[in-house]
Amino acid sequence: MKRRTFLTTSAAALGGAAASAELSAPLYAKGKRRLKMVTTWPKRFPGLGTRAEQLAEDIETATDGRIKIKVYAANELVPALGVFDAVSAGKADIYHGADYYWQGKHQAFAFFAAVPFGLNAMEMSQWINFGGGQELWDELAGGFNLKSLICCTTGVQMGGWYKKEINSLADFKGLRIRIPGLGGEVLKRLGATPVTKAGGEIFLALSQGNIDASEWVGPWNDMAFGFQNITKHYYTSAFHEPGPAIAAGFNLEVWNSFSKADQALISAIAGDNYQKSLAEYNARNAQSMQVLVEKHGVELKTFSEEIMLALIKTSDEVMQELAQTDDMTRHIYNSYMDTRRAAMAWSKVADEPYLISRRLYENFGKRL
Amino acid sequence: MKRRTFLTTSAAALGGAAASAELSAPLYAKGKRRLKMVTTWPKRFPGLGTRAEQLAEDIETATDGRIKIKVYAANELVPALGVFDAVSAGKADIYHGADYYWQGKHQAFAFFAAVPFGLNAMEMSQWINFGGGQELWDELAGGFNLKSLICCTTGVQMGGWYKKEINSLADFKGLRIRIPGLGGEVLKRLGATPVTKAGGEIFLALSQGNIDASEWVGPWNDMAFGFQNITKHYYTSAFHEPGPAIAAGFNLEVWNSFSKADQALISAIAGDNYQKSLAEYNARNAQSMQVLVEKHGVELKTFSEEIMLALIKTSDEVMQELAQTDDMTRHIYNSYMDTRRAAMAWSKVADEPYLISRRLYENFGKRL
Repeated sequence: MKRRTFLTTSAAALGGAAASAELSAPLYAKGKRRLKMVTTWPKRFPGLGTRAEQLAEDIETATDGRIKIKVYAANELVPALGVFDAVSAGKADIYHGADYYWQGKHQAFAFFAAVPFGLNAMEMSQWINFGGGQELWDELAGGFNLKSLICCTTGVQMGGWYKKEINSLADFKGLRIRIPGLGGEVLKRLGATPVTKAGGEIFLALSQGNIDASEWVGPWNDMAFGFQNITKHYYTSAFHEPGPAIAAGFNLEVWNSFSKADQALISAIAGDNYQKSLAEYNARNAQSMQVLVEKHGVELKTFSEEIMLALIKTSDEVMQELAQTDDMTRHIYNSYMDTRRAAMAWSKVADEPYLISRRLYENFGKRL
Repeated sequence: MKRRTFLTTSAAALGGAAASAELSAPLYAKGKRRLKMVTTWPKRFPGLGTRAEQLAEDIETATDGRIKIKVYAANELVPALGVFDAVSAGKADIYHGADYYWQGKHQAFAFFAAVPFGLNAMEMSQWINFGGGQELWDELAGGFNLKSLICCTTGVQMGGWYKKEINSLADFKGLRIRIPGLGGEVLKRLGATPVTKAGGEIFLALSQGNIDASEWVGPWNDMAFGFQNITKHYYTSAFHEPGPAIAAGFNLEVWNSFSKADQALISAIAGDNYQKSLAEYNARNAQSMQVLVEKHGVELKTFSEEIMLALIKTSDEVMQELAQTDDMTRHIYNSYMDTRRAAMAWSKVADEPYLISRRLYENFGKRL
């Protein structure tokens, strides 16, 4: 969907029901707020679902119950992918989900979750907070009557589970793989058939042979689904989701109805949840990966350099085309790429050599 | 200083003036708090000093002025390294500084800032929040009447500025280098002479030849000091400070006097500042590094594998010895190393291959 008229579309024209209509008068008079958060996650889904609950709980605790947020799992109040429209229209107050789900609303939303060979989790914070990302997001989301904050991330995802080894580019030909969005488009151009499936359907499809491969999240979430019982070929790392950001998208009138103090408080809690979710995913992924390898005999594999180069080249083509669709997308693409260029130059001389040099420790044996 | 009696030392025995003595009665009655934060940083010091100000400002904004924190630069109220005692005794309410400064109080404090070949910034959050680190910190700091939170980090630091190239281990012999703490001990064992100097003294000492080399922070802070005008040999990355955490250390009675809601609010603001400081340092370091290389002709260098191996082996010896000094330190060391082991295994299959594979982009030329 192209939205060339985007920049002239005012928030007011798109505005839904005012937030105050959702609040019972006596509670509001006491300064108490009761809000509804709708999510794209199954009930108690580890990491993503539990972080939505945590965000709500943290806001309630820090405001001593003045702001209470009831969290609804996918399909409890509205369908998983209906949360955007629900919050935009004021039928719910906040959504918790990955913004690449809204590429049908505007393709530029992808940049605020993850794009192929894009920013990792901490680099996303760099772009959002110090590279102009939040201002662009406010403009994009504002056009849909939303104000969004990054509040959760999975960290680096994995390349996925493949029933057969992928040794050359030719092995992608005809491969039916569950992978959504822009990553799917990249694999399509390399000859694969990307398939969209909700989380709960993947295990059966993979075990019954309806699909040949699937990416999901990472060891913590993947092991819970039992993929290790179907295949042992686990590819690392995900070119298409190097650290997807999850958004807390507020109905704009609800957001504007908060005092400056509460806006600051909620923003800080979102930012704190963002970094803690990364730390939690890293901790749990490390534990789960060890179990997958040592107990389940999973074999970790990486794609060959030939394949990686084709993935990069094709991803670049896809992103270039995407950037041309309208002014807003080109503007966001350029800003995102400025941060990526800086982050790549910096991680090359800072984080990367440190991680590699520290591993020389392995030469001293298993004790370390 | 060994403190074998540490575990039996009660907080009460060490307790200083109660926080309430610091508060004027009328303000306290209105629920208003006026607190003093003492820091180890020069006035308006970019990154570290400005983050102390930001932390105070964020707490004031989110509480709508209910909690106001006045920030004092080093030596304004107490000397830079006097902040620990001042807050422990209740003469100030909060300190903002790196906990390895307190190794003279208890050597285990080093783990809550940085140790050689230790955790990077996000791994520190993993340990503190999901690896038992905060509980151990509460025990250690509690013994000094303190409650501490991580609230700032510089990210990966640099290896330092060297007037002569370091090509072999022999080049460390007799080298006078400004480097504090455990990193200094490591270089000492390799034949160098570690020197302690406050930030403001380094430039003159290096330019006059009183020292031959110095580490400081990273490009953003280093360029401001003008090291590039003395030498062009800039080594990356810092084996001794891969992502030091900065603490907000609260007087324990002050901390306990906060409501549960305010404790949650302050904790979230500290966590949010932690991740934003990392993003900010990464953004500014990237910009500054480009200027250093392109405008000032600085040459980025890495130590040889021979040197790295010696640094690792010696660091391991130093850490092993440190771990043996008392039960508390051994306990903290073991917990820290558990997280390090997990983080290394995970980053090896997740963050590291992603960073490396993404750089294949460089093959497509300068456009990317």
